[in-house]
Amino acid sequence: MTKPLQSIIHIDSYPKLRDPLLISGLPGIGFVGNIAVVHIIKQMNAEKFGEVYSPHFQDVAYSSVDNGLRRPTIELHSCRLPSDARDLVILYGNTQPLSSYGQYEVSQKILSQVSELGCRSIISLAGLKQEYVKEQPQVFCVGSGFDAMDAVCARGVIPLQGEVYGMAGVLVGLAKLEGMQAVCLLAETLGLYPDASAAKALLEKINLAYGLHFDFSGLAETAKEVSANQ
Amino acid sequence: MTKPLQSIIHIDSYPKLRDPLLISGLPGIGFVGNIAVVHIIKQMNAEKFGEVYSPHFQDVAYSSVDNGLRRPTIELHSCRLPSDARDLVILYGNTQPLSSYGQYEVSQKILSQVSELGCRSIISLAGLKQEYVKEQPQVFCVGSGFDAMDAVCARGVIPLQGEVYGMAGVLVGLAKLEGMQAVCLLAETLGLYPDASAAKALLEKINLAYGLHFDFSGLAETAKEVSANQ
Amino acid sequence: MTKPLQSIIHIDSYPKLRDPLLISGLPGIGFVGNIAVVHIIKQMNAEKFGEVYSPHFQDVAYSSVDNGLRRPTIELHSCRLPSDARDLVILYGNTQPLSSYGQYEVSQKILSQVSELGCRSIISLAGLKQEYVKEQPQVFCVGSGFDAMDAVCARGVIPLQGEVYGMAGVLVGLAKLEGMQAVCLLAETLGLYPDASAAKALLEKINLAYGLHFDFSGLAETAKEVSANQ
Amino acid sequence: MTKPLQSIIHIDSYPKLRDPLLISGLPGIGFVGNIAVVHIIKQMNAEKFGEVYSPHFQDVAYSSVDNGLRRPTIELHSCRLPSDARDLVILYGNTQPLSSYGQYEVSQKILSQVSELGCRSIISLAGLKQEYVKEQPQVFCVGSGFDAMDAVCARGVIPLQGEVYGMAGVLVGLAKLEGMQAVCLLAETLGLYPDASAAKALLEKINLAYGLHFDFSGLAETAKEVSANQ
Repeated sequence: MTKPLQSIIHIDSYPKLRDPLLISGLPGIGFVGNIAVVHIIKQMNAEKFGEVYSPHFQDVAYSSVDNGLRRPTIELHSCRLPSDARDLVILYGNTQPLSSYGQYEVSQKILSQVSELGCRSIISLAGLKQEYVKEQPQVFCVGSGFDAMDAVCARGVIPLQGEVYGMAGVLVGLAKLEGMQAVCLLAETLGLYPDASAAKALLEKINLAYGLHFDFSGLAETAKEVSANQ
Repeated sequence: MTKPLQSIIHIDSYPKLRDPLLISGLPGIGFVGNIAVVHIIKQMNAEKFGEVYSPHFQDVAYSSVDNGLRRPTIELHSCRLPSDARDLVILYGNTQPLSSYGQYEVSQKILSQVSELGCRSIISLAGLKQEYVKEQPQVFCVGSGFDAMDAVCARGVIPLQGEVYGMAGVLVGLAKLEGMQAVCLLAETLGLYPDASAAKALLEKINLAYGLHFDFSGLAETAKEVSANQ
Repeated sequence: MTKPLQSIIHIDSYPKLRDPLLISGLPGIGFVGNIAVVHIIKQMNAEKFGEVYSPHFQDVAYSSVDNGLRRPTIELHSCRLPSDARDLVILYGNTQPLSSYGQYEVSQKILSQVSELGCRSIISLAGLKQEYVKEQPQVFCVGSGFDAMDAVCARGVIPLQGEVYGMAGVLVGLAKLEGMQAVCLLAETLGLYPDASAAKALLEKINLAYGLHFDFSGLAETAKEVSANQ
Repeated sequence: MTKPLQSIIHIDSYPKLRDPLLISGLPGIGFVGNIAVVHIIKQMNAEKFGEVYSPHFQDVAYSSVDNGLRRPTIELHSCRLPSDARDLVILYGNTQPLSSYGQYEVSQKILSQVSELGCRSIISLAGLKQEYVKEQPQVFCVGSGFDAMDAVCARGVIPLQGEVYGMAGVLVGLAKLEGMQAVCLLAETLGLYPDASAAKALLEKINLAYGLHFDFSGLAETAKEVSANQ
């Protein structure tokens, strides 16, 4: 009853993972990263194995479309990639911590947890707000490990000069402290609505750089769901 | 002298309770929940057995109508229901924590405490601000346990699509973590004054759904007191 | 190196005190309480025996009139009253904590400390902002212990209906938790400048209610110093 | 996993230092202190031996000019002075903590750390915003130890009547608690751009007061780099 209240991760059951790659997509500009990871979770039938509880989330409860109750949350899912020797850990959330302090606390807890699970490599996904966007949205990157950067840059991803706020930035900034390679991929977006097209651009680059095979059917529906679940 | 300062619950004496139901009514829109629980405390001669102290309350002291001193507080009361096999724990406060972090801290401490006292079921009461309100105010609900939801929905309570801020929402959102069923009942209100009529609507639905027998005499006076004690 | 950073009280040497009375005067409206306690410290040659260090103070250093350096601080002084069986502890500060949380943390640390020193009775001094002030400013009170209240009310102090913000209120509100009697005395003031006249009104009431003999020479100079040292 | 999250200092390797002098230059008005310490680090080939990690920094990652990734950081560097019996510890940062609480936490951690390394003397560098600045900018000081103050005041540094916000002030204000002498030197600046000329004024006074021999070549280029790295 007297321990300090801070963010904790409830793990339902510890998955056994082969060289797992973490892909993070939290709510942000155009819900771009959020749409991409919900799409991956659905397509790969990824299984939720843990959940972040944090007093740094908004003090709110949501009633969802099916009348159930949801609270602000960030979830850990995992799945096995069929044709590959490695597994995925997917970080999905319907929220981000309210304060900068909370962003650091939650990011650090997640990095410690996935490091324990054997994860040495991280991709965080985000949108990059632009006034004008090409029909095929460009993808930018910011990264801490040169191998990870080289892999995506070889696929037409453009190194970004700038700043990435929120957990997409903090996860990548702190990854080095845990000895991980990390890259943040940002797809350009107008940011005015949940942007399935920008999410598709991110998934295409991930396919190319990591030799994965996500397909893109149903992305528009996922974008609508993500928007309704915030 | 060196432990971190956080919310604690002072318990005067631990009551022995039979399958207790927690009813929470903190200050909020139209003081609806607040009026309802003060009414229950008075009518049932409920006894205060504990009090929350929190550094997350406002830094203020109030002088009350009888010249005594009050500080921001949340109190735990209990009473025995005459014709029923279960007891009530009633959560009354003249304040809510100032920050979202404080809302989580206090809610979690309270849930741990009432869980220790054997509580498995929670009702939080609140107002729902509307532009126009029916003569007989409608009551809405948001819930985490399906039995609890079914019981109130069978009595004309309408499932809500939306968000509940503050401790009324957080208590219900976190209850699942403690293995509790929880439902938030919200009565529509203009929210312009302490609304005895909306409080009555909540008490009527609680009577129906839980087989209780609160009467409604003196609610208008209670509304005036609640307003004066903030 | 890893303990949480919080407010602490550095005690230079523990004074032996006979039934000490705490008088607190921190910066606030019209610097009224601040002027009064600086006046007591000077007149009684009170000795500083401790100092609060808190990360909840403003992040600033001041250079004072004599080119020395000061930081935000709250100090504990003590003195023996010549013609009386009891001693004084005087709480002086050039600051208050920035946040409501900090107000609670510092107040609680101080109450624990003075309770350890045998203190069972507290007076906190403050100003009460008014549009118009009588030539002889009125003094109001808010209190938690009836004996303490009776003593001052018998001397023409008027019980206040209202709210006292900041440490003047929190000290009194929390005193009961430490089993102390506490009263807050507020002198009416325009609050536009350091108000020596309101400070005098407080000292007069303290003299009457507690049988003390503070004189009032030099109050105007003290008001100027207090103002220069903020 | 359950310890409170707070600022920590990662030390790569503990340097052996002879009577070290700490010179701190964090981002602030006109980047004056920042430019001065980057200049010292480059000129003296100072070696980074530690780094502050703090959840009180901004939640952001930066991509730097060479496409590497940086996060908000404060670094500890050390170097040996060729013609002198003492060593330098240099505090460089691309950020300051966001909150006043963070300023105290980080300052206190740094003071504890450098105290352990044998440091008894501190200079913090900052800019002082003015409407008009002399061609040769004046240098002001605020200090806690009289020897340190005398040394700089004998070289034409002007004691300041006023306030120093941020870590430049807090480091000096808290130094006394660790038994250190500390002085803050502030060069006047318009504060409209990274001000190499004000940084030069600081370095000149340090040379005079401490018998050091920093030269000033390349200061303008350093000012541009510092600006680009924020």
